[in-house]
Amino acid sequence: MEVGFLGLGIMGKAMAMNLLKNGFKVTVWNRTLAKCEELVEFGATIGDTPAAVVKKCNITVAILSDPSAALSVVFDKDGVLEQIGSGKGYIDMSTVDDDTSSKIHKAVTAKGGSFLEAPVSGSKKPAEDGQLVILAAGDEALYEEAIPAFDVLGKKSFFLGHVGNGAKMKLVVNMIMGSMMNAFSEGLVLAERSGLNPHALLDVLDLGGIANPMFRLKGPTMIQNNYSPAFPLKHQQKDMRLALALGDENAVSMPAAAAANEAFKKARSMELGDLDFSAVHEIVKIHKSSS
Amino acid sequence: MEVGFLGLGIMGKAMAMNLLKNGFKVTVWNRTLAKCEELVEFGATIGDTPAAVVKKCNITVAILSDPSAALSVVFDKDGVLEQIGSGKGYIDMSTVDDDTSSKIHKAVTAKGGSFLEAPVSGSKKPAEDGQLVILAAGDEALYEEAIPAFDVLGKKSFFLGHVGNGAKMKLVVNMIMGSMMNAFSEGLVLAERSGLNPHALLDVLDLGGIANPMFRLKGPTMIQNNYSPAFPLKHQQKDMRLALALGDENAVSMPAAAAANEAFKKARSMELGDLDFSAVHEIVKIHKSSS
Amino acid sequence: MEVGFLGLGIMGKAMAMNLLKNGFKVTVWNRTLAKCEELVEFGATIGDTPAAVVKKCNITVAILSDPSAALSVVFDKDGVLEQIGSGKGYIDMSTVDDDTSSKIHKAVTAKGGSFLEAPVSGSKKPAEDGQLVILAAGDEALYEEAIPAFDVLGKKSFFLGHVGNGAKMKLVVNMIMGSMMNAFSEGLVLAERSGLNPHALLDVLDLGGIANPMFRLKGPTMIQNNYSPAFPLKHQQKDMRLALALGDENAVSMPAAAAANEAFKKARSMELGDLDFSAVHEIVKIHKSSS
Amino acid sequence: MEVGFLGLGIMGKAMAMNLLKNGFKVTVWNRTLAKCEELVEFGATIGDTPAAVVKKCNITVAILSDPSAALSVVFDKDGVLEQIGSGKGYIDMSTVDDDTSSKIHKAVTAKGGSFLEAPVSGSKKPAEDGQLVILAAGDEALYEEAIPAFDVLGKKSFFLGHVGNGAKMKLVVNMIMGSMMNAFSEGLVLAERSGLNPHALLDVLDLGGIANPMFRLKGPTMIQNNYSPAFPLKHQQKDMRLALALGDENAVSMPAAAAANEAFKKARSMELGDLDFSAVHEIVKIHKSSS
Repeated sequence: MEVGFLGLGIMGKAMAMNLLKNGFKVTVWNRTLAKCEELVEFGATIGDTPAAVVKKCNITVAILSDPSAALSVVFDKDGVLEQIGSGKGYIDMSTVDDDTSSKIHKAVTAKGGSFLEAPVSGSKKPAEDGQLVILAAGDEALYEEAIPAFDVLGKKSFFLGHVGNGAKMKLVVNMIMGSMMNAFSEGLVLAERSGLNPHALLDVLDLGGIANPMFRLKGPTMIQNNYSPAFPLKHQQKDMRLALALGDENAVSMPAAAAANEAFKKARSMELGDLDFSAVHEIVKIHKSSS
Repeated sequence: MEVGFLGLGIMGKAMAMNLLKNGFKVTVWNRTLAKCEELVEFGATIGDTPAAVVKKCNITVAILSDPSAALSVVFDKDGVLEQIGSGKGYIDMSTVDDDTSSKIHKAVTAKGGSFLEAPVSGSKKPAEDGQLVILAAGDEALYEEAIPAFDVLGKKSFFLGHVGNGAKMKLVVNMIMGSMMNAFSEGLVLAERSGLNPHALLDVLDLGGIANPMFRLKGPTMIQNNYSPAFPLKHQQKDMRLALALGDENAVSMPAAAAANEAFKKARSMELGDLDFSAVHEIVKIHKSSS
Repeated sequence: MEVGFLGLGIMGKAMAMNLLKNGFKVTVWNRTLAKCEELVEFGATIGDTPAAVVKKCNITVAILSDPSAALSVVFDKDGVLEQIGSGKGYIDMSTVDDDTSSKIHKAVTAKGGSFLEAPVSGSKKPAEDGQLVILAAGDEALYEEAIPAFDVLGKKSFFLGHVGNGAKMKLVVNMIMGSMMNAFSEGLVLAERSGLNPHALLDVLDLGGIANPMFRLKGPTMIQNNYSPAFPLKHQQKDMRLALALGDENAVSMPAAAAANEAFKKARSMELGDLDFSAVHEIVKIHKSSS
Repeated sequence: MEVGFLGLGIMGKAMAMNLLKNGFKVTVWNRTLAKCEELVEFGATIGDTPAAVVKKCNITVAILSDPSAALSVVFDKDGVLEQIGSGKGYIDMSTVDDDTSSKIHKAVTAKGGSFLEAPVSGSKKPAEDGQLVILAAGDEALYEEAIPAFDVLGKKSFFLGHVGNGAKMKLVVNMIMGSMMNAFSEGLVLAERSGLNPHALLDVLDLGGIANPMFRLKGPTMIQNNYSPAFPLKHQQKDMRLALALGDENAVSMPAAAAANEAFKKARSMELGDLDFSAVHEIVKIHKSSS
């Protein structure tokens, strides 16, 4: 199977490599050429421009760093739009907002192409291990066609309906995650101030019905006040805000998420926004002798 | 090793049986005699009264249904106090409040006995399988002595320091659990009202960093509005209230827990208190067309 | 002093009438002509179009019903822009969003005119009595020039700095008002369920340090479950949302406002959005026997 | 009319003085005698003990500083109980908890006396000016008999039903006040961080529908970070806690009060508990450059 691949950042490189290792023919493009060359050793072909990649491949996957890069690759000169058309599919796996996704969707389908948004859950390690979770939405036939590639890239892929649903699903998951992180921080602080050993709390939690990888992974570093960013707090807060806005549109009252969001905002006001989102722990902890 | 065992309810019977199967000599007592006889088949001896059990055994374990039963077994005529004394240990594994635990603790030690509170996390199934988590606090020497029994009863036991810490640890865990349940309910409702399939949300959650047994177990029944009580909502709300009170004593501000607590209170006002605590989902769901 | 006046809705008509009664020469325009004629009896001149009004008067005041009407009067054919220019001032007293205000501001100043946003606090009665509170922002010289008119229209006018500050001030006030309404509703329900007479609560409140016109006015109708709309709940919730968004921009954490906002959202989900914002009381009241 | 008066603290002295000035015959007692002598100049008689005062007067009023003082005056040797009985009334105007009030109530009525709890709203100045608000509950006949005294002491008195209702009414009022203070603080901080002048906000608020003495009085000092205690924050937080507990008993969900309570708890954790309750403003204000 032949696949075009646009964007070789941390995630993209690992994903393209996986496709190559699993026997896919991959034509890659990246804004800075050097990154492409590393993949040539493993059998990749280089495309000169996004348009050239789309011309050559029936399915092109993109994973760009942000909305403006995602738009630029499609709409700029030598971009995807110049070659997309009937019989060709474009799969954007970037995490972008509704608006961006919708613009690309409209432009691609106006040209006769088919489109899928497919943001992923998981970071560098799962990308390398082919253990991502893929939240696809848009053209179902394209989804079916892409399954062999998704099977290599992820441990599981979902088809969630019309364009926008992939992004919404990510928001819902991240909202639950953000509220859980607040609950967890409150528990850690309550334990410590009540004379319990927070490490014992971690052990007890990990043996019970709410044991989960996040508590297991973040708990020990939070106790050490170590918040090196895996998922920056300001992004978590942005997702809480967007999830609350989605709730507002649909008249869903979410007081727990709202309380968590305000704690993340307090953390931003303390200039913790670039740390890991577990740094909300610092807000729960603030008290006289620590300030 | 010889162990006395007071209280053969659902939990107690399973636990005493485990001890017998693992070669312990067990002398049992229960308010209604019939329950003791079932265990005699498996090698148990019957004690006529709590006092008789304590007289015979150096270590006596109790697991009673509520504070008044826990107090009665100790303080009533023919109770534990009549025979407890130097060289004898009493381990109360009931889930009781601070006050109750503290009264028993003082009475037992005043007679020269040693005392351990050791509430457990886990219900019927883990009790049968010896997979409880034991939160012990009090006399450390007694804890060491009891380890062989704890190893049979639980997958893990903790020694948490002075009397009261076992109960506190349970409160902290249950507080986190209650906040998580609210976050989870909000996510389920947001998904559904935003046009996502809530079953897909469960699948996505279960593949990610916040996957946990509670979401896995309760999610499908919550979607079906099925809340048959494993842990009654009114007890969950009571634990939230006590955890918040513990925070109040120690000047720990916990806005996420407070928001969750108010939702559980709303659920009580809707007469959902006897259902499972996951019924807080009904509160998040309330809207015009459902009422 | 000569003043142009665009928009003769409930508010506009009362305000234009006040200007006339106080000796101002007023040239009025309204989309439907009939409303102008009522004012002619009191000495008003009619302008055929917004452009004609601006041509004739150095200061033109507008109070339109919503952002689209506010934009249309300026940008459409025969609109304000066609005649605005150096030496002419335009004062928009409509309550509109930042964006709308900013568009009008830019267009007017690009033509050389001066601009003031001046939303008001107060409804029909204060408009008739000249008792509005005027929150002006933009061109300070124009503000100074308009003071004689503002003195007639309001009991007090403020100059708040650059364009946008008038709208922000309204949001902050309405946010405090929305949180207070929630606190008040919770108090009324707590009183009633605790066996106190809610009318006695109103009396006690009105004698103390937090006595205020809103409690005095809305309390008795809330107790009767009467919520005929003075300020619709959906507008109050929109202002809470915008105030929280303003806080988000400036990293201000506002947990009380967030909790109040979620209650208003719940009210919207119960289809109470078109009732008075005091209908949030219904959300606090919901319990089993009332449902 | 003859009245006994126990307790000549700041409040008690002002109140007793008012009674004397208005022609009541007053027999006073205070733990430290000196305070009584000041009142003798104005016509007061001194009673040697609480019992002596009760023996002499058919109605005895007490206003003590805290529950232990309120209990001591009744139950200690030479206390109220020794002389109370049929035909004699005891009115406790102290602010105490339910339990204390209930103990005194039971003891007085067991002796055949009649009892009224009558906590007041208002501090030193209103006490001097006879402008207190009196929240009476208990024996209605005694209330009727005491009206001439209440008319002198307060601008208004209420009879609220059975013992306990006076204290509950105070809690409900203070809960609303605490939530309002949070809303007000959030508004002040939002104004300032959004580039508005907080003094202008105070002016705008004071002209509108939510204008109230508390905003007027505390606003200017809060802007100056001046929190000299009129009502200490720790007492406000205690009242929020008790009001939330009253809600818990009656299954009333109060998310706005809960959010406010957590902010007051945060303030306590920052050691602001002895400042005025308006110091919760400091919690809303905390951000990086201020810490």
